[in-house]
Amino acid sequence: MSGRLTGVGVGPGDPDLMTLKAVRIIAAADVVAYFAKAGSPSHARAIAAGHMRPGVTEEALGYPVTTEIARKAPEYGAAIESFYAASAARLAAHLDAGRSVAVLSEGDPFFYGSYMHLHARLAARYPTEVIPGVTSIAGCAAIAGVPLAQGDDVLAIVPGTLSEPQLIERFMAGEAFAVIKLGRNLGKVRRALAASGRIAGALYVERGTMADGRVLKLADKPDDTAPYFAVILVPGWESRP
Amino acid sequence: MSGRLTGVGVGPGDPDLMTLKAVRIIAAADVVAYFAKAGSPSHARAIAAGHMRPGVTEEALGYPVTTEIARKAPEYGAAIESFYAASAARLAAHLDAGRSVAVLSEGDPFFYGSYMHLHARLAARYPTEVIPGVTSIAGCAAIAGVPLAQGDDVLAIVPGTLSEPQLIERFMAGEAFAVIKLGRNLGKVRRALAASGRIAGALYVERGTMADGRVLKLADKPDDTAPYFAVILVPGWESRP
Repeated sequence: MSGRLTGVGVGPGDPDLMTLKAVRIIAAADVVAYFAKAGSPSHARAIAAGHMRPGVTEEALGYPVTTEIARKAPEYGAAIESFYAASAARLAAHLDAGRSVAVLSEGDPFFYGSYMHLHARLAARYPTEVIPGVTSIAGCAAIAGVPLAQGDDVLAIVPGTLSEPQLIERFMAGEAFAVIKLGRNLGKVRRALAASGRIAGALYVERGTMADGRVLKLADKPDDTAPYFAVILVPGWESRP
Repeated sequence: MSGRLTGVGVGPGDPDLMTLKAVRIIAAADVVAYFAKAGSPSHARAIAAGHMRPGVTEEALGYPVTTEIARKAPEYGAAIESFYAASAARLAAHLDAGRSVAVLSEGDPFFYGSYMHLHARLAARYPTEVIPGVTSIAGCAAIAGVPLAQGDDVLAIVPGTLSEPQLIERFMAGEAFAVIKLGRNLGKVRRALAASGRIAGALYVERGTMADGRVLKLADKPDDTAPYFAVILVPGWESRP
């Protein structure tokens, strides 16, 4: 009997925003796996740590260092591809031995999460379940206290990795936006929001549900330094009620 | 001392997908409020029922019957506006008396939820907190087993209430979509997906995380009957890894 694979969304940061099901799966797992930048602690593990069994087997899947390689270069794709294949093989060995494996994902596993790369490689071979989680966007909107979308609003989740012309095109076309993957893209995103007339309503939210989180109008943020997991919210809800 | 207002996301349906924080707030609340169609049971209440204190005060906020009035007619706006104002006044009376009030919201409170109409009327006057929840979209993607968005994908949440030309315009422009508010709009949404070349990848998910939920290719669904809370998912993730 092979073990069961579970992709577990652990929510946006506050451990209290884990679901009952996530807590139960993590507490019962034989193996807990998570992605992390090589040499850095895993955010997802920090969120879940209070519910992991003492002495549980852990698999830290450390991304290869690729900062020197352009994101669209073939070498980048090859490095990432072989990393995901090796990670899937590590988990497959546990599953073949009958051990249950919980893969922790910040936010929701199918919402821009790395878990899906394991899912694509393993779900056809092993019994698999995905536990959805609260996204960073929902967490940030709650902290900011702003209704994000309502009625006929289209809400677009926009990665800050798009080019400036692509960003402008998106911002011109919709009602409500959440911009993710900020980091070094913040300056570009700011220019695109200004060019499309949407900067006045934009909020910058950093570490949304963490104790040291903060919310400010993007226009009031003096610099273009942002962590990768910061989010910009441009609420819709133009036509009440 | 006035009481505290909390907008509580209870997730997409499975009570096990409530967050630890939602459970704690509901169990401690003096008053539990929820919206429902007049004469129908509340889905949100059903999700949370196992955690409500026996004998807790309940406020069922029953939507006025408006099926005979066109959604954009002034009478519709007036009826809904006075309903939200009266609902806010009912909760304000509890808050003024020092009672804590938890408003249950299916999914996430700020994600197309009715709670925001109360929030807009009460949050400036009372201590207020919002507990984010797992959205129906994340719940449906998890059940369907499909990664929804990755990398540079823009994920657009599209209300089925838009006109057919508006829907086509949106579907032509993006990578990944989740279509909400289906109900009587399913036929129109299906035609718009076909016209924009996106119907082949579309999945229809009904009662995502409920025991009787089902997932099928939209192309395999023979009729255009759908409950309002069904969702269509059009996954992106065209360019792996």
